[in-house]
Amino acid sequence: MYIFVLVCHFKKLAMRKVILGVAVSLDGFIEGPNGEYDWCVIDPDYSFDEFFKRLDTFFVGRKTYEMTSAAEGSPPGFPTFKEYVFSTTLDKVKEGATLIKGDIKTEVERIKKEDGKDIWLFGGAGLTTSLMNLGLVDELSLAIYPILLGGGKPLFQNINNRIKLKLVDLKKYSTGSVSLTYNIIV
Amino acid sequence: MYIFVLVCHFKKLAMRKVILGVAVSLDGFIEGPNGEYDWCVIDPDYSFDEFFKRLDTFFVGRKTYEMTSAAEGSPPGFPTFKEYVFSTTLDKVKEGATLIKGDIKTEVERIKKEDGKDIWLFGGAGLTTSLMNLGLVDELSLAIYPILLGGGKPLFQNINNRIKLKLVDLKKYSTGSVSLTYNIIV
Repeated sequence: MYIFVLVCHFKKLAMRKVILGVAVSLDGFIEGPNGEYDWCVIDPDYSFDEFFKRLDTFFVGRKTYEMTSAAEGSPPGFPTFKEYVFSTTLDKVKEGATLIKGDIKTEVERIKKEDGKDIWLFGGAGLTTSLMNLGLVDELSLAIYPILLGGGKPLFQNINNRIKLKLVDLKKYSTGSVSLTYNIIV
Repeated sequence: MYIFVLVCHFKKLAMRKVILGVAVSLDGFIEGPNGEYDWCVIDPDYSFDEFFKRLDTFFVGRKTYEMTSAAEGSPPGFPTFKEYVFSTTLDKVKEGATLIKGDIKTEVERIKKEDGKDIWLFGGAGLTTSLMNLGLVDELSLAIYPILLGGGKPLFQNINNRIKLKLVDLKKYSTGSVSLTYNIIV
């Protein structure tokens, strides 16, 4: 009995985290008014290595999937992750990717309980809102760029309730971007 | 001639800065959906002393003025600053305060050229937008609180153009709030 409880406890602790990891302007936009992301230049002293070590999977919304799958392969230096595409309109996705059309909560909870590393919630805005409101995101890792875009696509919109956060990491880069990492407090 | 140029240069360098100094949620709100600011608790290891030393004046919009002037005197620990109230609808303001009804750009440029310390742009949202769009704000000093409010009054709205920033200071407090200070790059 004790061993069973301990194992369950360990499984719970070991559950995979969903990490919203994105770059955002100081006024909270992930794209400019015309879809621009030219402002979002990766800092020369930033390395994705540490972040990527924690991950083996990413979650994308339909629009981000269509944008990224138009490119051949992964960008240079990006490892190949297992990809879940969330869409109510697509009927199929590319080979190797998995389409999630059903009940998001059930599906994400199932994936989080599977063996594996953490999961990168890579976008877009609609999927982020859904997962945040369902309490399925565990960590925010935001790179705040030193710019006000004045408009565009907001990172956070239609969040239903207050969400308390715990700052767990803070880094500053030479270009003036700041990386803030928070755990979401349930 | 050289002395004159030098004096002008010095005067320009010495011009008073307008500093937008506010607390904001990670999703960019200065008030919650029902005007709440209970989330904005001053960190026990934060001191206003250093910030206040730089200032002797503040700029407020009409709503902030009406809210703060309903209270008797300054909050404990807050020095008494010279107060400029920006409003197109008010006809008079309390004794000691100055009403700015005219051309904002001319008036603010005049005040910035006067002798004195820096100026705290204390709110509200409308005045902030006007001064940002007119290029009259020199510095942002934001305390980012570890919370998503999900809605409310945004700090930045209707900013007309991209505004580039230079990070000049970064501090972390025990409650998880982060103070980010930027110069606005003209």
